[in-house]
Amino acid sequence: MNLSKDCIEVPLYYNIHSKEDFIFQIQCKRKPAVLRGLDIGDCCEKWSAEYLTHHIGHLEAKIHVSCESKMDFINKNFSYKTLSLAEIIKRASATIKENYFFQPQEYYYLRSLSSERRGREVSDITKQFAQIADDIVIPKFFNDDDFFSSVLRVSSEGVQLWTHYDIMDNILIQVKGRKRVVLFDPSDISYLYMEGDKSRVLDIDEPDLTLFPEFTKATKYVCTLEPGDVLFIPALWFHNTLALTYGVAVNVFWKNLDHELYDKNDFYGNKDLLPAAKALQNVENAIKLLNTLPPQYKDFYLKRCLKNIEKHLQ
Amino acid sequence: MNLSKDCIEVPLYYNIHSKEDFIFQIQCKRKPAVLRGLDIGDCCEKWSAEYLTHHIGHLEAKIHVSCESKMDFINKNFSYKTLSLAEIIKRASATIKENYFFQPQEYYYLRSLSSERRGREVSDITKQFAQIADDIVIPKFFNDDDFFSSVLRVSSEGVQLWTHYDIMDNILIQVKGRKRVVLFDPSDISYLYMEGDKSRVLDIDEPDLTLFPEFTKATKYVCTLEPGDVLFIPALWFHNTLALTYGVAVNVFWKNLDHELYDKNDFYGNKDLLPAAKALQNVENAIKLLNTLPPQYKDFYLKRCLKNIEKHLQ
Repeated sequence: MNLSKDCIEVPLYYNIHSKEDFIFQIQCKRKPAVLRGLDIGDCCEKWSAEYLTHHIGHLEAKIHVSCESKMDFINKNFSYKTLSLAEIIKRASATIKENYFFQPQEYYYLRSLSSERRGREVSDITKQFAQIADDIVIPKFFNDDDFFSSVLRVSSEGVQLWTHYDIMDNILIQVKGRKRVVLFDPSDISYLYMEGDKSRVLDIDEPDLTLFPEFTKATKYVCTLEPGDVLFIPALWFHNTLALTYGVAVNVFWKNLDHELYDKNDFYGNKDLLPAAKALQNVENAIKLLNTLPPQYKDFYLKRCLKNIEKHLQ
Repeated sequence: MNLSKDCIEVPLYYNIHSKEDFIFQIQCKRKPAVLRGLDIGDCCEKWSAEYLTHHIGHLEAKIHVSCESKMDFINKNFSYKTLSLAEIIKRASATIKENYFFQPQEYYYLRSLSSERRGREVSDITKQFAQIADDIVIPKFFNDDDFFSSVLRVSSEGVQLWTHYDIMDNILIQVKGRKRVVLFDPSDISYLYMEGDKSRVLDIDEPDLTLFPEFTKATKYVCTLEPGDVLFIPALWFHNTLALTYGVAVNVFWKNLDHELYDKNDFYGNKDLLPAAKALQNVENAIKLLNTLPPQYKDFYLKRCLKNIEKHLQ
């Protein structure tokens, strides 16, 4: 992708070493940043396919498998399959697979869940992957109390994940492989054709502008993560990841706001903040009520609702 | 006011005689119309200042009195005063008043209320002004069951009433004097800077475009009512009246939708339909909830609310 005028490079920082550095130079700005040269332990050297197979290869995990590189959560062009980590790593790291579900060139994506079967706990690599967890040093950018989850992500080359937002600040630690990440400011939400927390614009490089004409107004923040890089993704920033190679990453989420604002039943860090979820529900109720009126009245009062909300925008 | 390209003349109809004519040629179009040549009784001939004084001059009424011709309900540039109808008519029909509250050239506006003291009933001229009610024939454009109110309006020359909307279909029967009425389609609500049911744009002829830049996008529907003319004002159509001379009019409202949609405590015909009022309240609740969040989050979710509402606009 060319860095056109609507494309901003995510700034690269080499000098973020302490929590204070992070809070005052990075987090408070509410913009993404790539932190390079942080001490994240030996994982970059150690986590070869052989090493991971040896230490966690026996564990099972649920993965997304798709024949298309652009995974589409809205139209669900993938299947969930369960495999051993050994097999996942073997297949994900090979372009043409010996064993496959649908076709030799299929795409794999692992996002670790909790070991609790129904997924009603948050992912924590120190629990699910204790065998390798000591290899990685999670930067101490937040209070232990605020820790929410650490998620292991494994992608085969070419996997591109739908643009979405999470509601917590998080860091994406690229351990193996290279990944392009495109981010969008939360204030660009109007141009992203959201359905819940996911954008309907799957192809962000060559979007269908007849379907998504406003998308061109969104400003892309772009970076390419190398092994060892840490990307800060502020809460609400939309992001789209593209695995340029087979890769392994750890994504760490924490509660950057009052804990009471978060939904206790959120195990992924993407449920809307409680007051926001209630607000959205109130708006749905308003729409339902207006749907009972004749069209002219409905439109009129929808517009009154819009005007009342617009007054409160900054 | 010039009829510029953003100005449409309200069509004039001479051939509306039956309820069916009215419903199929006028009401169902949801556009204003001036009906001329209707039989509205002898009121146009009879209701001279002397005649009214003789028959209803002894009754008292509450009026708006202002030193400014443009009455402003938002900033309340008027006082409520109580006078006998004889005195109201005497003062309202004279440019320079012998007796006055503030200054010889002050403006009077009467909108009849119910005789019940606290105004907790609707106005009905057959009750409040039984002495003259038989002089006017209200066109039978609606079922008796649907009748809501009939309001006597007396204005001194120059009185201009703030742009507002009512929630019921109504007809304004101009009995004495001439009145310019400017109307706006409900779909132009976004350009009218509404505060509740009232527009903040007081001077619609020479609006302050630094304060109200969008106002130029609103299309004016204009008519000048002569004695005997009947203006159909569809529910939700914004209207602004300017008394070109001293004038007397009767305004008749009826429930054009299911009765259960209307607020039982509405005595003026301008309280929002019940589902709409609830919807607006839901939106206010949503805004209150979002006000508890940090600014970035608030803005983000306000925009999500906007998007959700916009999807339902036609």
